[in-house]
Amino acid sequence: MIDPEIKARLDKLLDSERMSEMRGALMMLNVVDIADYMDELDKGRMLKVYRILPKDISADVFAYLSDEQKQKLMESIGDSETARLISDMFIDDAVDFLEELPANLVRRVLANVNEEQRRNINTFLQYPDNSAGSIMTMEFCDLHAGLTAGEAIKYIRTHSVDKETIYTIYVLDSTRHLMGTLPLRKLLLSDENTPIESLISTSFIYAHTLDDQEQVAELVRKYDLMSVPILDTEDRMVGIVTADDIMDVIEQEATEDIEKMNALLPSEDDYIRTSPVKLAKNRLPWLLFMMVSSILTETIIDKFSGELTIAFSACIPMLMGTGGNCGSQSSTLAIRGLALGEIKPSDAFQVLWKEFRVSLIVSAALAILSFFIQRFVFARTVMEAGTISCAMICTVILAKSIGCTLPLLAKKLKLDPALMAAPLITTIVDVCSLLILVLFASAI
Amino acid sequence: MIDPEIKARLDKLLDSERMSEMRGALMMLNVVDIADYMDELDKGRMLKVYRILPKDISADVFAYLSDEQKQKLMESIGDSETARLISDMFIDDAVDFLEELPANLVRRVLANVNEEQRRNINTFLQYPDNSAGSIMTMEFCDLHAGLTAGEAIKYIRTHSVDKETIYTIYVLDSTRHLMGTLPLRKLLLSDENTPIESLISTSFIYAHTLDDQEQVAELVRKYDLMSVPILDTEDRMVGIVTADDIMDVIEQEATEDIEKMNALLPSEDDYIRTSPVKLAKNRLPWLLFMMVSSILTETIIDKFSGELTIAFSACIPMLMGTGGNCGSQSSTLAIRGLALGEIKPSDAFQVLWKEFRVSLIVSAALAILSFFIQRFVFARTVMEAGTISCAMICTVILAKSIGCTLPLLAKKLKLDPALMAAPLITTIVDVCSLLILVLFASAI
Repeated sequence: MIDPEIKARLDKLLDSERMSEMRGALMMLNVVDIADYMDELDKGRMLKVYRILPKDISADVFAYLSDEQKQKLMESIGDSETARLISDMFIDDAVDFLEELPANLVRRVLANVNEEQRRNINTFLQYPDNSAGSIMTMEFCDLHAGLTAGEAIKYIRTHSVDKETIYTIYVLDSTRHLMGTLPLRKLLLSDENTPIESLISTSFIYAHTLDDQEQVAELVRKYDLMSVPILDTEDRMVGIVTADDIMDVIEQEATEDIEKMNALLPSEDDYIRTSPVKLAKNRLPWLLFMMVSSILTETIIDKFSGELTIAFSACIPMLMGTGGNCGSQSSTLAIRGLALGEIKPSDAFQVLWKEFRVSLIVSAALAILSFFIQRFVFARTVMEAGTISCAMICTVILAKSIGCTLPLLAKKLKLDPALMAAPLITTIVDVCSLLILVLFASAI
Repeated sequence: MIDPEIKARLDKLLDSERMSEMRGALMMLNVVDIADYMDELDKGRMLKVYRILPKDISADVFAYLSDEQKQKLMESIGDSETARLISDMFIDDAVDFLEELPANLVRRVLANVNEEQRRNINTFLQYPDNSAGSIMTMEFCDLHAGLTAGEAIKYIRTHSVDKETIYTIYVLDSTRHLMGTLPLRKLLLSDENTPIESLISTSFIYAHTLDDQEQVAELVRKYDLMSVPILDTEDRMVGIVTADDIMDVIEQEATEDIEKMNALLPSEDDYIRTSPVKLAKNRLPWLLFMMVSSILTETIIDKFSGELTIAFSACIPMLMGTGGNCGSQSSTLAIRGLALGEIKPSDAFQVLWKEFRVSLIVSAALAILSFFIQRFVFARTVMEAGTISCAMICTVILAKSIGCTLPLLAKKLKLDPALMAAPLITTIVDVCSLLILVLFASAI
C-alpha cells in the first residue's frame, strides 16, 4: 500500500490539475508505488495520471497495475497504444496480462503489434500453466563465442538496453545451443584481451520449457541463482527465468499447499476480489466429502450405543480432536519436509520409527493428564478413566503413523502429498479412534 | 541431492586415490554439488576431498556444507585454518555458522581472525534472531559521490572482487549516509563522463537493522529488488540483504505459518536431524491445551445427556467436524491474505460480510445433504433430521464468522494471526457447535 501522506499530496495535485507538479512528484516514486496509487483511482483520474507519465516508464507502471485497472486503461487508450505498451513490456509480463483477457481482446491487441512479437507472444501463450516456459522471459543477454572480454563489454554496453537482466551473460554457439554462462562481474573483473571462452562456466544449471515451475524454483533456491537458462525440447536456449519471478512462485506454491492442507481447493485469485459463489465452490468439495464419510462414525455410534455409556460418549470429541491434531501434526511435518527436500519417500521407515517414538512420549503425557481429568473432574470410575487413557494411547500412535505415512506414500505414487493433510487424515483418524474406543468399551 | 552416477564416479576416483583426476572432476561441479557430495562422506574421506579443493572455492564449498560436517571438518583442520575459511566467507554465512557453534569454539575461532573481522562478527552476532541485521552481509559495493561513470566502472573493476553483489552500487556521502542507488546496468549503459550523482536514484527502498526479516522480504517481493540497503539506528548504511537470502526467509516464514496453523510450535530444525524428545516438545503444548479445553465439551455432553438422544449424539462428530473444517477454511484464507498483504485488518467488515454470504451457500448445500443422509440412511424422524440440519446451518455460519474474525483481530492487536488457526478455532467451534445442538435438541 502506498503511504497515506504521499497519496493525500498526490490527490491534492490531481484535484487542482497541477499536472506538471504532479509529474514531478510521481517521478520521485518507485514505479510499483505509482501503480499502487493508480490502482485506487477511478477510470478518468487514472487516465489523467497515465497521460503525464514519461513514455519510458509507462510500460513499467502498466505492468504493475492490477488486472482490473489494466483493462480499464486499455478501454480508454485504444488498441494501438495498448499494443505499444505490450511491446515495451517484458514478454513474461505481457503474456501474464494477455492470459487474463478475453480471447477477442487478445486478438485485437495482437493485431497491432509487429509480426515477430506476435509470433513470440503466441508461442509463450501455448506453454502450459505453471511450466518454466510460462514464467520465462526472452529478453536475455546472449553473446556468440569468439569475442574477447573487452569486445563483450562493449557489445553489452550498446545492445542491452532492453534485457531483463545483464548480470548473467549466456554464450551460445551458432545453433543457439548454450556453451556456458558468464557472470557480468567476472567479465568486468577480467583483463580486456581474455577470450570469453576461457571465462565461461560450462557446468551451468538449466531447465526445460516444459519443466514444472516448482522444479525451477528448487534450482534457484538450491544454487542461489539470479536467473536460470531455459532450453526448448531441442536444447536450444529460448529464455531465462529470473529470481524475482521465482519468489512469486515460492509464495504461490506455499499458498497452494496451505490451502490444500486446510480443506480448500487451491486458487490463485485475490480473496477480496473473488465472489462468494466462487469461494463456496472451492470449499464445498471437501466439506461434502467429509459429511458423506461421517456416515461411518455415525453408524459406529449407532451400532454400539449399548456399550457407549455416558462416560465414553462424552469423551468422543476429546479423543477425536486429539487424534485429528496428532495426525495433522505428523502429516504437516512430512508434507513440508517433502516440499523442502528434507525428506525423501525412501526415508519412510526412518520417519515411521521416529514418529512412533514421538507418539510414545506424547501419548504418555496425554494419557496421564486424561486419567486425572476423567477421574477427578468428571468422577469416572478408575476402570472408565483407565480405558479412556488406553484408547488415547492407541489413537495417538495410530494417528501419527497414518499422518506420516500417507504423504510419503502419495509422493511415491507421484500424487501431491499436500492432499494427504488434515482433512483426509482427520476423517480416517476419526473412524479409527472411534473403533478403538468401541473395542475397549466392549472389552470391559 | 547429487546425481547418483556422478557420485559413483567420484567415489571410484576417491577410493583409488587418483586425486588429481578427482580434482579435475570436482572442478566440473557447482560448489553446491561439491558440498552435497562431501556431506555424505565420513570425516576422513571428507578431509581428503577438502584438501584437494582449490583455495579460492574452499570457503564457498564450506559455506554450503551441513552444520554437522562443518564441525567435523573444523576439528580436523584446526583453528587457524578454520579462521581462514571464516575470513573468506561472506559475513552473513560466517555468522550463521558461528551461531550454531558452542561458545568456547566460537571464542577459539575468533581468536584466530583479525581484529577488524572479529569486531564485525561480534556486532553481527548481537543482532536479534530474524532481524534484518541477522541476515545482512557487509560486503556491498559502495562509492563516494563525485566520480564520473567511467571512474566508477574502473573503481569497481579493481575493488570489487569480494563483494556479494556488484549489481547495485550504493553511493554514500562522507558520513556514510546513503545518497542513492545505482544499478550497474545503468552505469554501464551510460556515457563515461556522466557524473554518477546524475544517474543515482534517490527514491530507493531501504530497511533498518532491527526490522523484522519478514518486512524486508515483503519489500524485495513487492519491488522486485535484488538487494536492499540496511541502515543502522543512526541511518548510516551498514549492509545489504540479497535476494537469495530473502528466498530462504520466504520459505522459512511459510514453514513457520504452516506449523503454527497445524498445532505445532515452529522450529527451524531439519525433521530428520531432530530428536523425538524435541519433536514431542513442539507438539505437546497445543495437544495439552486442547485436552484441557475439551473439559468444556465433555461437561456439556454430560449435563445434557438426557436431551441428547442417540440421533443427536451420533451426529456430534459430523457436526463438529464440519464446523472445524469450515472455521479452518476461513481462518486459512484470512491468515494467508494477511501474510501476503491482500487483506488488511481494516477490511474486517468486508471480509465478514463475504464470509456470511459464503456460509449461506455452503450451509444450505450441507444442510440439504445432511437431511437426506439422516432421514434415509439412518431413518431418523423428519423432526430429528430437520433439527440437525438447522444446527448445521448455525454452526457453519458461526464457524466461518469466528474463523475470519479472529486472525484479523490478532493482527489488529499486533499478535501473530497464524496462531488463530485450526487448533484454536476448532476448539472454540467445537464448544459452540455442541451448544447449538443442545439448544435445538432441548427446544424440541
